[in-house]
Amino acid sequence: MKIIKTAFTGGDVLTIFDESIVNLHNYFPKEKIVILTDETIYGLHKHKIDDYLTIKIDGGEKNKTQATVDTVINTLLDMDIDKSYMLVGIGGGVITDMAGYIANIYKRGIKLGLVPTTILGMTDAAIGGKNGVNVGIYKNMVGTTYRSQFILYDFSFLDTLPKTQWINGFAEIIKHACIKDATMFDELVSKNIEYFIENKNAIATLIQKNVAIKSDIVVNDEYETGDRFLLNFGHTFGHAIENEYQLPHGYAVSIGIIMASKISEEVNNFDSISTKKIINLLQQYQLPVSLEIDNKRVLNLLKKDKKRSGIEINFVLLNKIGEGVIKKIPFSMLEDLADQIL
Amino acid sequence: MKIIKTAFTGGDVLTIFDESIVNLHNYFPKEKIVILTDETIYGLHKHKIDDYLTIKIDGGEKNKTQATVDTVINTLLDMDIDKSYMLVGIGGGVITDMAGYIANIYKRGIKLGLVPTTILGMTDAAIGGKNGVNVGIYKNMVGTTYRSQFILYDFSFLDTLPKTQWINGFAEIIKHACIKDATMFDELVSKNIEYFIENKNAIATLIQKNVAIKSDIVVNDEYETGDRFLLNFGHTFGHAIENEYQLPHGYAVSIGIIMASKISEEVNNFDSISTKKIINLLQQYQLPVSLEIDNKRVLNLLKKDKKRSGIEINFVLLNKIGEGVIKKIPFSMLEDLADQIL
Repeated sequence: MKIIKTAFTGGDVLTIFDESIVNLHNYFPKEKIVILTDETIYGLHKHKIDDYLTIKIDGGEKNKTQATVDTVINTLLDMDIDKSYMLVGIGGGVITDMAGYIANIYKRGIKLGLVPTTILGMTDAAIGGKNGVNVGIYKNMVGTTYRSQFILYDFSFLDTLPKTQWINGFAEIIKHACIKDATMFDELVSKNIEYFIENKNAIATLIQKNVAIKSDIVVNDEYETGDRFLLNFGHTFGHAIENEYQLPHGYAVSIGIIMASKISEEVNNFDSISTKKIINLLQQYQLPVSLEIDNKRVLNLLKKDKKRSGIEINFVLLNKIGEGVIKKIPFSMLEDLADQIL
Repeated sequence: MKIIKTAFTGGDVLTIFDESIVNLHNYFPKEKIVILTDETIYGLHKHKIDDYLTIKIDGGEKNKTQATVDTVINTLLDMDIDKSYMLVGIGGGVITDMAGYIANIYKRGIKLGLVPTTILGMTDAAIGGKNGVNVGIYKNMVGTTYRSQFILYDFSFLDTLPKTQWINGFAEIIKHACIKDATMFDELVSKNIEYFIENKNAIATLIQKNVAIKSDIVVNDEYETGDRFLLNFGHTFGHAIENEYQLPHGYAVSIGIIMASKISEEVNNFDSISTKKIINLLQQYQLPVSLEIDNKRVLNLLKKDKKRSGIEINFVLLNKIGEGVIKKIPFSMLEDLADQIL
């Protein structure tokens, strides 16, 4: 077990690696914990958490809505939960996002703990305090930035993770490699997804490396006024197509990464051989590298993206593999480029 | 005009006294403002704001709900509002509370400006960043703490304020006097509500004094870990009876202040003559000083109060007029006392 302390508005976040969920009570009094989880996780792991107060919801992106939040809030009220309690979200990004949002708005904020159970949750969603719910087809249109007291990594949850979810999570890992870590990019090239599924030590080490990359960016730019925006690499188009085409998040990001790489070629002199390397790597980790899309529709969805400011759009491009850069691109230029690259 | 800068998490709040709403564009670019207001304020003052993007909602405590928030969020999305915009809430506490909450959660936070139009809003609700919506009969069960860039005081809104709303607002002013300012208490004793309604300079000065009292407390304890809790004087019982008996906030607080004064006599050696002085002052400002209530029901409602932590309840008592104090009272003792004083 290894614990890392990270500073955040309002206090520290403890990142606890390689700890079992059965020791959850060591981090907050058992009788003051309410667990929020989904039916799948509960079904597979209930023997580890069956003596906690627990709220189960239907998982999946389509349930990440205000309506689900309303239901949980009413349950918390019925349970007489006050500010002395901690809400602990155990699950993938949908659960940890909703747990964070609910913990922030319920009675103006109760304590929060997160236990991500997927590659995506462990390397991305649970880190950095951002939370949110979807509004119609628009992703995370409502949410806040809220600190968790801890993030507990129990890698044994990965034993029950379906392969599609492994693939889904590697999109964010490859994203981190593209914007920040050429060495990790090369390491990923030298392995494949089966290797990480079969090799527990390797995936634990890779996850810790990715947590370090994201935490490092977040701690220096909690409210995304600068560098944190780099983490949106592949996400501008990714978000626009994710719900519209009913894609898993990582699959949409994979397509978004390719689009952003091609745009980097056009407006940032990014090397076309590097784009090919990126496409190959995504393929190696069994992520999709092409998609039939309706250009006009996707560009319209882009306009709703919460990161857009006026007629220009902040966009993450690559200088080279391992080095992302934020540039403002006029929306009109993006429309022209889209015709070429989509 | 007078501008006071107060530090808050994330930046300063500008408190702008004695400024006209027609100069709103001096504080943020007109084309980047969306006004949130209610039908009443819009009907009375639309000529001052009719060239701004505006969202009108039905005012009143019963509409301070997540359902109203959902409607506003969808309207903001339809209007293509992004993070470069500011939401400006113009209205009483219901509007400024909802504006604060919506500005915080929409796209994880857009800028916020507040223009309180009632005595209650000007002396209390708009100050200090707390916002919220009701869940069923429970007040402010959902909400956050979120900074506004400015609070603009245009006292001409008071010209159209109904007398019941004047009375409503004086409950918070009397509360401030009880917990922090014996001199202001005496000043209030020497005047009455008609005096302040007729004397614009006097009410402007009184409001500024109350803003200073609240700001002072808030700036030193933004997240209510200490002194800020004093502001809940009269509110523990006040909140419990407010929605249950369909009382205006100030009317409920008036009853709550009397209960808290009587409990102060029982457990804090508070002088019974002072309780009588407080009751007289509330009456002088035409606030209710008695109410037929169902003890058991009110105590049950109290259990849901978001400020309750476990079996004890944090309660604000008086040492003397002008000096509040926070004490933990076992819930059981409160039940016994309630039988005597309710």
